[in-house]
Amino acid sequence: MEELVMTVGVLATEFERRLARTREQMKKAGIDALFVYSDEYHPGYSFYYTNFRTINCIEESAHALFIPLEGEIQAFLGNLNRFAAKRFSWIKNVNSIYEMEALLPKYVSELTYEVKTVGVVGEELFPISLYRDMEKAFVKDGINIIDAGQIVVQERLYKSKAELDLIRKAGKLADDSILAALEQLQIGKTEIELSAIGEYVTRSHGGEIGSAYLVVSGPDHTNLPTWRPMERNIEHGDYVWFDFNPMVDGYCSDTGITVAMEGVTEEQIRIMNFAYDTNQRMVEFIKPGITGKQLFQETLRICENAGLADYFLPYTKGMRAIGHGVGLEVVETPDLGPNSDFVFEPNMCFGIKFDLHGFPFGGVRVEPTVIITENGAEPVNDLRGMRAKYESNFK
Amino acid sequence: MEELVMTVGVLATEFERRLARTREQMKKAGIDALFVYSDEYHPGYSFYYTNFRTINCIEESAHALFIPLEGEIQAFLGNLNRFAAKRFSWIKNVNSIYEMEALLPKYVSELTYEVKTVGVVGEELFPISLYRDMEKAFVKDGINIIDAGQIVVQERLYKSKAELDLIRKAGKLADDSILAALEQLQIGKTEIELSAIGEYVTRSHGGEIGSAYLVVSGPDHTNLPTWRPMERNIEHGDYVWFDFNPMVDGYCSDTGITVAMEGVTEEQIRIMNFAYDTNQRMVEFIKPGITGKQLFQETLRICENAGLADYFLPYTKGMRAIGHGVGLEVVETPDLGPNSDFVFEPNMCFGIKFDLHGFPFGGVRVEPTVIITENGAEPVNDLRGMRAKYESNFK
Repeated sequence: MEELVMTVGVLATEFERRLARTREQMKKAGIDALFVYSDEYHPGYSFYYTNFRTINCIEESAHALFIPLEGEIQAFLGNLNRFAAKRFSWIKNVNSIYEMEALLPKYVSELTYEVKTVGVVGEELFPISLYRDMEKAFVKDGINIIDAGQIVVQERLYKSKAELDLIRKAGKLADDSILAALEQLQIGKTEIELSAIGEYVTRSHGGEIGSAYLVVSGPDHTNLPTWRPMERNIEHGDYVWFDFNPMVDGYCSDTGITVAMEGVTEEQIRIMNFAYDTNQRMVEFIKPGITGKQLFQETLRICENAGLADYFLPYTKGMRAIGHGVGLEVVETPDLGPNSDFVFEPNMCFGIKFDLHGFPFGGVRVEPTVIITENGAEPVNDLRGMRAKYESNFK
Repeated sequence: MEELVMTVGVLATEFERRLARTREQMKKAGIDALFVYSDEYHPGYSFYYTNFRTINCIEESAHALFIPLEGEIQAFLGNLNRFAAKRFSWIKNVNSIYEMEALLPKYVSELTYEVKTVGVVGEELFPISLYRDMEKAFVKDGINIIDAGQIVVQERLYKSKAELDLIRKAGKLADDSILAALEQLQIGKTEIELSAIGEYVTRSHGGEIGSAYLVVSGPDHTNLPTWRPMERNIEHGDYVWFDFNPMVDGYCSDTGITVAMEGVTEEQIRIMNFAYDTNQRMVEFIKPGITGKQLFQETLRICENAGLADYFLPYTKGMRAIGHGVGLEVVETPDLGPNSDFVFEPNMCFGIKFDLHGFPFGGVRVEPTVIITENGAEPVNDLRGMRAKYESNFK
């Protein structure tokens, strides 16, 4: 594991390319500098330019970047993270986030061109208390502040070969972690114990936990569209979901399967098979050029034909009805749902999610991470293989 | 474990008391309603009133509360979390966070009194994009918005018996998790493997991971004031730090120790002993009525007497120089450092931290969680016991 991680990392030249592309986009948009905000909880925006993730709770884990059109990037971090950033970050100019108000005008004045417009990236993360400091710094200089999130979102959509390799590794690690938990799955185990096993495999193989690690079971918990593991014992006749999201060198996968305990009814098996089949058809339906909406409509059509739309539709009013981007975060832009005009293109990466909820016996989820190629969607997980392996042990 | 967790939970009557006390403080401050913002990353503010923690990344994990002086609390959540909140939250009125702008004026108009001033709690977390929605809703009604973070911060400082029992349990779980990792500590193990062992023990015993789980080792990593485990092999002569922060039913501890591998020098042992001794003297120095600044000065005095102030002072320029509150989050207000006027009082809870960095062989950390009583500071961890147990195995 260790060796592989070392060989697929993102090279410095790739960071240079990212920066060059971002600056082209800034010029096109009439933006003279970007101010990028992210933190430990959502590290993607800054990680994309620095290869560095902060740690240690919100004030200390703030990780902002001032990216001018020319010259050096300045990073603004919580105090404790500055020491590690000097060693590990691709950006070596590290400042205190509490000195933004004084330092930003200085960095603006040192540029060889006039800054009229600053684009802010990460408004959905940027806390108002810190935002005000940034705002004051730029307003002092008569600079116009606009939302420029789309520039970085758009750049991050298309993954490089190194990024896709890391996502494939994260997907393999998800499968290995789920398989390890499946091997220990039996009636009487708790959701928490099974989560602990999956997390242990991820961590001990050098991965990190991209977001919540979920094992949920039984009617009450699998009917919730999102929930965490509890001290519930797995019972006879239960559905059990595994939704594991390991991260390798900052890149994630989002992988979920449902399995059934002994004692499930024929109807439960039928519903679960339907979920696996429908998810596979969703993956096969994806081609470059189709939209998120078209994928949603196809999924709805399949549910309607099976008389199951009532178990699908109520839960597709959230943002991420049938999937979302995956990359530096488990959940990235875009969301895929009934109103998604988003067009699939090669080198994008998604979690493609099929959920049904609301049966008396609970609900099901099937979700692989896929990479879009010229030919369609390539899954990085082997969901059917995992299910088959579990069921062959079980018999 | 499960049984104990069940018996020490926070009762509904305690939530009623919290709400009544908060409303008294609102009245004193001339605040007609509170708007509380928190999320999965920092759940404390809302959890304090709801016993509920959201999940699933930032847009879906927003967890805001509208708390009027009279009548019912309204919760605003990401869409997916609304399903679980209806089942598990103490607050049953759940709304979509994306409908704040339309719903807040409605809830204001339904009150039997006029709302002139709304106090916002959580400005350090509240993302600007959502803040604007809230602001528009209240501005529409001519309402004045002020920062009221201190009201909830102040309430959360004093822990109830149930809260302190949960913190004690979290501390015991930290010790058990560190001991399990210490049992596997040997030259050649990686930092990541040891972290995985500690996390597994926490999770499989029903705990959750309050924040980063750290095992760091060797000169490069232990000289950083905060960092995460890497694929580094533990070597002969290393310092190894364990900093584990389990959460039990939402309540945390923050626990750190340093141990030494075979081959360390006499000087390394002397520095490590000094750290344990100094931390113990810090804990013994704490009495109700003293300030954070006094504790800092005493700690500095001890370092100066030992000729070690140069390894202490540069790292105390962060916010949490020698400690911080602990409770619903691993790091709560207040920060303890050279400028801390904060006064220790009974039923408060702190991580009391002693760090030295910058030696050629690395740095040390010793940090128990303590509860303030009438008589002083009661540690919830047994740091010296853990160290002794490790060293007796080692010999």
